Amino acid sequence: MIADTPSTTYYAVIFTSLRTDGDHGYAEAAERMVELAREQPGFLGVESARGGDGLGITVSYWASEAAILAWKHHPEHSEIRERGRSTWYSACHTRVCRVERAYAFKTAT
Amino acid sequence: MIADTPSTTYYAVIFTSLRTDGDHGYAEAAERMVELAREQPGFLGVESARGGDGLGITVSYWASEAAILAWKHHPEHSEIRERGRSTWYSACHTRVCRVERAYAFKTAT
Repeated sequence: MIADTPSTTYYAVIFTSLRTDGDHGYAEAAERMVELAREQPGFLGVESARGGDGLGITVSYWASEAAILAWKHHPEHSEIRERGRSTWYSACHTRVCRVERAYAFKTAT
Repeated sequence: MIADTPSTTYYAVIFTSLRTDGDHGYAEAAERMVELAREQPGFLGVESARGGDGLGITVSYWASEAAILAWKHHPEHSEIRERGRSTWYSACHTRVCRVERAYAFKTAT
């Protein structure tokens, strides 16, 4: 569930959101977006969590800025983004980042 | 709850983790770390969510890489980090990022 990202330069898109009340097709659309993102060139992985207070954080990882822009302009993604703004989210913030360095830790199993 | 970050260059630390079972002092320590982080020079904000599947994402925002390094080497933070690895987390990943651009959306209230 923690994304297995490369040791070379890559990018992260941090999407933080506050949900409105009710589902209104959100769960299905969110699942579809992850499925679609996975098919995009340059997609490296995704991590997602939403707490009991309604704050959700989804971080997707990408090989390049070009891959992020292509995903941004994907027709189905653009359409869903509009529904997010009109229906599912009361607020959201998208931050496009370059990952400078990373550290991992995992217990021996 | 969504961090109010600046329009100038800033940095994000994405901390993704999987919890072990049981609290073992985790909730108290997590609260203390956020409290302590807020007091550090260059701290800009924090967003945190943990889903029902145990995956947690905490993103903290900082004015500079120097501020991130100073926080990393803070004695109380270093001590808590060790307890995280020995007790609270089965896996975690820290990614230090430079925020390249950001977009915000909020419904009129």
